[in-house]
This record gives sequence, C-alpha cells and structure tokens, in this order.
Amino acid sequence: MLKRLYKKKYNIDDINNLVKNDLIEVQKIIKNNIGDKIPLIDNLANHILTAGGKKIRPIVTLLTSKLCNYSGKNHLSLAACVELIHTATLLHDDVIDESKMRRGIPTANDLFGNKSSVLVGDFLFSKSFELMVANGSKSILKILSKTSSTLAEGEVMQLITIKNYLTDDQSYMNIIKAKTASLFSAASEISALLTNQDNQTQKNLKKYGEYLGTAFQLVDDALDYIGNEKLGKKIGDDFREGKITLPVIIAISNSDKEEKNFWKRVIELENRNEDDFKRALKIIEKYDGINITMNRALEFSECAIKSLNHFPESNFKNALQELPKIAVYRNK
Amino acid sequence: MLKRLYKKKYNIDDINNLVKNDLIEVQKIIKNNIGDKIPLIDNLANHILTAGGKKIRPIVTLLTSKLCNYSGKNHLSLAACVELIHTATLLHDDVIDESKMRRGIPTANDLFGNKSSVLVGDFLFSKSFELMVANGSKSILKILSKTSSTLAEGEVMQLITIKNYLTDDQSYMNIIKAKTASLFSAASEISALLTNQDNQTQKNLKKYGEYLGTAFQLVDDALDYIGNEKLGKKIGDDFREGKITLPVIIAISNSDKEEKNFWKRVIELENRNEDDFKRALKIIEKYDGINITMNRALEFSECAIKSLNHFPESNFKNALQELPKIAVYRNK
Repeated sequence: MLKRLYKKKYNIDDINNLVKNDLIEVQKIIKNNIGDKIPLIDNLANHILTAGGKKIRPIVTLLTSKLCNYSGKNHLSLAACVELIHTATLLHDDVIDESKMRRGIPTANDLFGNKSSVLVGDFLFSKSFELMVANGSKSILKILSKTSSTLAEGEVMQLITIKNYLTDDQSYMNIIKAKTASLFSAASEISALLTNQDNQTQKNLKKYGEYLGTAFQLVDDALDYIGNEKLGKKIGDDFREGKITLPVIIAISNSDKEEKNFWKRVIELENRNEDDFKRALKIIEKYDGINITMNRALEFSECAIKSLNHFPESNFKNALQELPKIAVYRNK
Repeated sequence: MLKRLYKKKYNIDDINNLVKNDLIEVQKIIKNNIGDKIPLIDNLANHILTAGGKKIRPIVTLLTSKLCNYSGKNHLSLAACVELIHTATLLHDDVIDESKMRRGIPTANDLFGNKSSVLVGDFLFSKSFELMVANGSKSILKILSKTSSTLAEGEVMQLITIKNYLTDDQSYMNIIKAKTASLFSAASEISALLTNQDNQTQKNLKKYGEYLGTAFQLVDDALDYIGNEKLGKKIGDDFREGKITLPVIIAISNSDKEEKNFWKRVIELENRNEDDFKRALKIIEKYDGINITMNRALEFSECAIKSLNHFPESNFKNALQELPKIAVYRNK
C-alpha cells in the first residue's frame, strides 16, 4: 500500500504551464527588487533563487487569485512577496541547521558563509515587506506580517525540540503548522482578500493552504527517511540534526525499553553514525512510521482538495486540487 | 581641544523624564507583542530589551511626534516598532560580530546561542511589521519597510569591507548612513507623516534623524578606541573584528609605507594582539584620527540641531536639540 502511494507519479509541469507567464513576471519582480547595487546580495540571492525550487507557494497565490477571477497585476507582486519570505527563511534555516546542500547544490551558507546568509536573509525579508506595502491592502499586510511572526515562532519551537526525544505528536503538528502551513495558508488566503471574497470563501482558501502546507511538510519529513537520493533528495538530514519528526515520534512512542534507550542515546548525542541511521530506519519501519506519516499527509491533502469543492469548475480549480496530490505522490 | 570635547558631560535623564510615561507605554507595547507563549523568545528578548540601552531611537519618535503636537496614541506603537527593528538588528549584529558582551552584560548569542539569536531576531523583526501594519499609514509603512532593507544593505556593505584595509572614507560614510542613520531618520520622519506636516517639515525631520544618527555612529566608532572601560564601554572591539571605521581610515590614508604595512598585516590577519591594538592607537593619535572623527560628528550634530530651527520653541524642541550634543559629548 505504502509503496503504491508514494511511488505513483504526478507532474508539476502541467500546473507550471498554467501560470508560466505569471511566474516569469514574478521572477522579474523578485530580481528587480533585489537589485544589483551590492554584488554580494545579488550573487547570494540569485544563488538560492535560481537553484530551481518548486515555487509551490507563489504558484498557490497565482492559481488562487485566478480561481477568484482576479484580473489585475497585484497578485504577481504578492506571489513575489511570498517567495521572498520563503527564501529568507530558507537562508536562515540552512544557517540554523548547518546544512551543506539544498536542492542538489551547495547551500548559500556553505558558499558565502553564515554571516552573509543571515544578512541577505534579513534583506530579502525586508524587501518582501517593502513589496507588500506597495502592493497589498491593509488586510493583506496584516496576514503576511502575522504569518512572518508565526514562521519565526515555528522555527524557534522547532529549535527547542531539537535533541528532545520526548517531543510529542501534538508539539510536532504545532511546529509544522507554524513553520510551514502558515505561509501556504497566507499564500492562498491573500487571494480571497485581493478579490473581496465573502468570509466563508476566505476561510476555505485559508484552510486549503493550511492543509496543503501540512501535507507537504509531512511528506517532506517522510522523504527524509525514504527519499530517492538519485533525484537529489538527501536522506537522513533530520536524523543527523536531531530533528524530531513524525516518523520518529511514532517509532519512539511504540518502542520497547531497549529501543527507547537507543532513541534517547542517538537523539541526545551530537554525533550519530550511519549505523545508527540504519537502525533508526528499521525501528521506524517496524512501527510503520512512514506509512502513518504518509497516510496523515494523504488525509490533509484530501481536506485541502475538499476545501475548494464549492468553487465552479475551471483549469485553476483542477490545478489547485491536483497540487495536494503532487505534494503527497512525489519522491523528492 | 579633543579632551574637552569628549569629556564634557551631558545627561540623558532630563530628556528621558520628558517622555517617561510614554516610554513606559512603549515598553508595555513591546512586552505585549513579544508575548510569553514561547519561553525562549520571552527570555531572550527580555534579556536584550531590559539590558538598559539608551532607547534613543524610540525617544526620537516620541519627542518628534510631540514636537509636531501629536495628541493620539499611535506614536507609542511606532516608537515600539523602531525599537523592535533596532533590537532585531542588534541580535543579528552580535551573531555576525561574534560579540560576547553588550551593554556590560553577556550578549544574547553568548547566553542563548547563535541559532536562537538569529530566530528571535527574525521574530522581533516580524513583530515590528505586525505592529506597524496595525498602527501606521501606508506612507509610514513605506518608510519603515524601506528603512529595514536599507539597514540590511548597510550591514552587508559593512561585512564586505571587513578585513579590507583599503576601505575609503566615502564607503565608510555610505555604510553608517545605511546601517545607523537610516533608522534614526525614519524614527524622526514618521512623526511628520503621523501629523500630516508639509513636505519641507517632513524633510527637515528626516534630515534631523539622519544627521543625529550619523553623529551618533561617528562617536561610537571613536569611542571604540578611546572609550572609558570603567563605564562599561569595551574598547578595541572594532579593531579585533577587523572593522574599518573612520579613525582607522584617517590613520591609514596618512600612514607612511611601514605603517601601511602594519595596517595591511593587522587588518587582513584573523588574530590581532593587544600590542597591535596599542600600536594602532598610537598611529591613530599621530594622525589625529579621533579628533577628526569627533569633529565630523560635531558638524553632523550641529546640522541636526539646525534642522529643527524653524519649529517654535518648546521643551520637546529643546530636548531634540540637546540630543545631538549628548550623542557627541558622551563617554560610553
């Protein structure tokens, strides 16, 4: 069941095609806002922005604004804001996690140093605010600024749980809601505000993003144990960083005394070796940690799909209802 | 001349008294916005916020809004925003500079770790945006968000010049304008927008902050070589970090060949010892580096004072025209 579930292949290319021109405009806006006045900012920002991320968050803003029949241009700048906020958090994340690789290439902190990554992260973050102030209503600014705080709270909560092998399911869900789902949720909800939708529609779009983002992060956390390294998805990073995600939480909560001692040792230790990772994988498999995580992702993805049911049929609706499936049925 | 100039004593207490109640409100707003949901955020933010900084930036916002006869409450939240932005940059600065002490106590990064400081800095920064969105007009948001980008640009520019002993006067002035004067300038200019002043008054307030901030930073950079350690001002930090400030730029530009080799060696080296610092001080003294820096600070402080001349006399005007003198005639 599990293998069928995550080996099934969907493709994001069709969705990208639907907003291809808009995405080009979004990239231009981002590039113009970064400028080329200071080479270090230009080089570092370009390094991470052109590394070929999925751009799923700005795509959500573009598709949902089209779903709501938006015909203006502000959705482009708002999608750029969302991507800039995300990129800023990635730069800081990689510093925090001491990551060496992202998207198959060296991280910005590895190439340019931690100091540059922190400061350019701050710069991108500020730029996203400048851009949203120029293009968003007060209600949109309220959501995006609140979301930025929530993202930082999520990162802090995650930092606190690192090396704490007693982190529970509820804490984990709170963390991924804050650090990931909140920006997906904002990316979607702002389209309702851009097009003056009624409260219920706004709520549905907000929930769509939240469910999609939650599914996305759950799968990410599963892939960190079962991903395909040939596709550029390095596995074992979370384990090596002592990051407690659902597959591990499930395994720990079911572990016997001897297995619990193993988790206590490897999660509280600074150095974990490859044999430890293999053993962790075995215990996770024994207690069905990946299946349970993937099934929960599937549930959230189904909720995301349902959130959009009341919208009339359109290519944009189809694409948005395809995204949660792609989020689940991907292998990198 | 020099000794008289920087040994003369002014006191900021009288100015603080003028906005005492407002400052208490500002502190409350900051505390409420940080919240106590996540202990690490609460503890770390409190550590830096209660360490007894000069609070000169929020004081500028409070005094200038009163100077413009503002009678509402929004100036309190905006002053809180300004202080939050400043505090966020301090947290990141201390990570970048690997500082161990600030304001006579251990830095947040020393006590809580770099990771926590980066993330709580992000949080405070986001909170300042939330707060300004709730309390500021679009024109105020525009200035504050632009200023945040400028601050980050200034920090990046400074990072690039570290260990570059060829950094010139113009680059240095651009850096301090961006990393320090811009926030002073915004702290002052927003009061003009809050009270719908004419363009010329807005420009004067903007310039007041810019000149004050420039004077403030010039003195800070001089004090790093001549400060009174008994008063909690640690000296030699800039030198040890390879940070190129005006006293050094003046010394280098006048140095003979042998002295130039000394600067090249100590600034490009990772490790500089106490003897090197003493020699640097001697060369700076030889070429009058401190006097020239302090005199430039004095010029900017006089420009700041003049920027407010056209305002009618009031306690607030007096206090604002006293601040640039305090900025210059302080010893820590």
